[in-house]
Amino acid sequence: MARRAGLSAAAVTKAVRPLIEAGYLVEDVDEGARPALGRPANLVRVDGGRALFIGVKVTGDTAIGVLTDLCCRILVARHIPLSARDPKAVLGTAAELVRELLIEADGLGVRVAGLGMAVSGDVDRAEGVVRYSPFLEWRDVPLAELAAMATGLPVTVDNDVRALTVAEQWFGAGVGLSGFAVVTVGAGIGCGLVVHGKVVAGAHGVAGEIGHITVDPAGPRCHCGNRGCVEAIAGDDAIVRQVRAATGVQVADAVEAAGLAHDGVTGAREVYARAGDAIGRGIATVANLLGPERVIISGEGLAAYDLFADHIRDAFATAAFGSAARCDVRTRPLPFDEWARGAAATAIQSFIRSDAN
Amino acid sequence: MARRAGLSAAAVTKAVRPLIEAGYLVEDVDEGARPALGRPANLVRVDGGRALFIGVKVTGDTAIGVLTDLCCRILVARHIPLSARDPKAVLGTAAELVRELLIEADGLGVRVAGLGMAVSGDVDRAEGVVRYSPFLEWRDVPLAELAAMATGLPVTVDNDVRALTVAEQWFGAGVGLSGFAVVTVGAGIGCGLVVHGKVVAGAHGVAGEIGHITVDPAGPRCHCGNRGCVEAIAGDDAIVRQVRAATGVQVADAVEAAGLAHDGVTGAREVYARAGDAIGRGIATVANLLGPERVIISGEGLAAYDLFADHIRDAFATAAFGSAARCDVRTRPLPFDEWARGAAATAIQSFIRSDAN
Repeated sequence: MARRAGLSAAAVTKAVRPLIEAGYLVEDVDEGARPALGRPANLVRVDGGRALFIGVKVTGDTAIGVLTDLCCRILVARHIPLSARDPKAVLGTAAELVRELLIEADGLGVRVAGLGMAVSGDVDRAEGVVRYSPFLEWRDVPLAELAAMATGLPVTVDNDVRALTVAEQWFGAGVGLSGFAVVTVGAGIGCGLVVHGKVVAGAHGVAGEIGHITVDPAGPRCHCGNRGCVEAIAGDDAIVRQVRAATGVQVADAVEAAGLAHDGVTGAREVYARAGDAIGRGIATVANLLGPERVIISGEGLAAYDLFADHIRDAFATAAFGSAARCDVRTRPLPFDEWARGAAATAIQSFIRSDAN
Repeated sequence: MARRAGLSAAAVTKAVRPLIEAGYLVEDVDEGARPALGRPANLVRVDGGRALFIGVKVTGDTAIGVLTDLCCRILVARHIPLSARDPKAVLGTAAELVRELLIEADGLGVRVAGLGMAVSGDVDRAEGVVRYSPFLEWRDVPLAELAAMATGLPVTVDNDVRALTVAEQWFGAGVGLSGFAVVTVGAGIGCGLVVHGKVVAGAHGVAGEIGHITVDPAGPRCHCGNRGCVEAIAGDDAIVRQVRAATGVQVADAVEAAGLAHDGVTGAREVYARAGDAIGRGIATVANLLGPERVIISGEGLAAYDLFADHIRDAFATAAFGSAARCDVRTRPLPFDEWARGAAATAIQSFIRSDAN
């Protein structure tokens, strides 16, 4: 621990002792770790059971909640469909989810120390405000304050993709990397960025908006007001709209649209080809600006990944500048429980940083 | 110093003493700094005269060199035109520049501790290699090794815009900001990024390539092989080509092209309008992905800034997503001496980090 933190053994001992006394760290007895020479180093590990956390991810139609321990291991997961998308309805459903998970925590006899909530869009974590969420049609909702009143817990709110990126950095395909990106494909096209070992939050709360990179100024109109954004070409709604126009079939959703393309309907396949091209260009822009070691593509859109994988790779290879093309672009399925786990991870971050523990 | 580094006074004293003994830091006597209570804190400052550095910036037609002190204050500046752009000719000119500056340093009786060289394009600082420089038409030139052989100095090579960004972070409009961008407009369109207080270098040496963001897939062909890159619309060569096509006047360079536009020739003015639109979209992409506090627009293209300033601002305001639009976008003239100073700053960084001092 001293080696990794760049501190003296004495400094680490001084910092660690109160955490051991409070029960957050426990000493492990491991004879194998004793060096042949010098003072033996005691191993310590986090006592995951010392505190519990709840993470809630809100999609356009469901609230997904997980109860985790201090090591962010998922103990229980619950999903509740939303009755409506307005803040009051979503808060009601989230509060119900939290109540169920608090009962589970009670059964374990451990207190819940914090709640993390993850919502798509422009979320100001420091202020606890959802400034603009296109999918929920929210503007300037003080979610942290409202959720704290509804649940009695300390609340951290963050953009859902940033929360997922924290989970990937702590436990997933980003472990040990100082620079990587998580690109999520589905209802929206999102991106979480880690630069110099930290998740990029943006000076004003906006960052990682890969979905609103313009790839074609003559392209379709986006809900953000511009034309030809990645999301306006490759988001679920855009794909459904374009497949309907290209095939004349009134597909109900992205699953049916992908079904048509999988059946080999040319117009539908072309829509996915264009979507893959837009996503690949967006990823190349991230690589050209930041030179990440790895880009992890995830999101519910991976279900149709075979339809646009080649186009993503081709567009990325073409648009990546010089050695930016060496970036490791890979896919990784991450179910919504994993996103909720990211929300719990943000609550753990807030808990560790606070002085209230 | 202890407060800013988050260290104990004892730890700072321990770290500072050898630097004082070696003459890099000197103690200031300032009675005003003595606290009413507790042990008095001694002020220390860097002794700029303890070591000198040379910075060289190479443009397409000139090598610009500066001799600086350890505080990166410019003592002497020299410019030598390039006879040709191949590595051998450029190295010869750079070595001549360094010899002249070494004579100046001799006159001051202080040794030169390092040379920084700044070149546009894909530069791998860790390896000391210029992988690809479009303007010099270089590929895989081991510049650090060659320049060290030619001059006998320890050499740091870096991308020129990244070097300028270091200078802005240390002494310019980036002081005290944890996230900002420097966008340079001229022969190329470049970008240096500071995220979490550090200049972004990219895992494979490529970062900040705002010039190769596609703003129009149906746009003009770029030297990188793609179409409609910011640089293919707004770089000097692109502007000259487009003004010739729009007006039929065979302008020789960007200065003449801007002259036509300043004379009110409609076709020429429209070329600058499109260029401003492309730059503004590129800056919005940086803001949407990273949320910097400030974007500093500079470069020799500022000479024509009045021709596209409004278009840059309009395109930025339109394409910035949500509160990313709050970013402070400003211009700042930085002559090439300032770029060479950035090269010297990278040499000072290497010197401080090395164990050889």
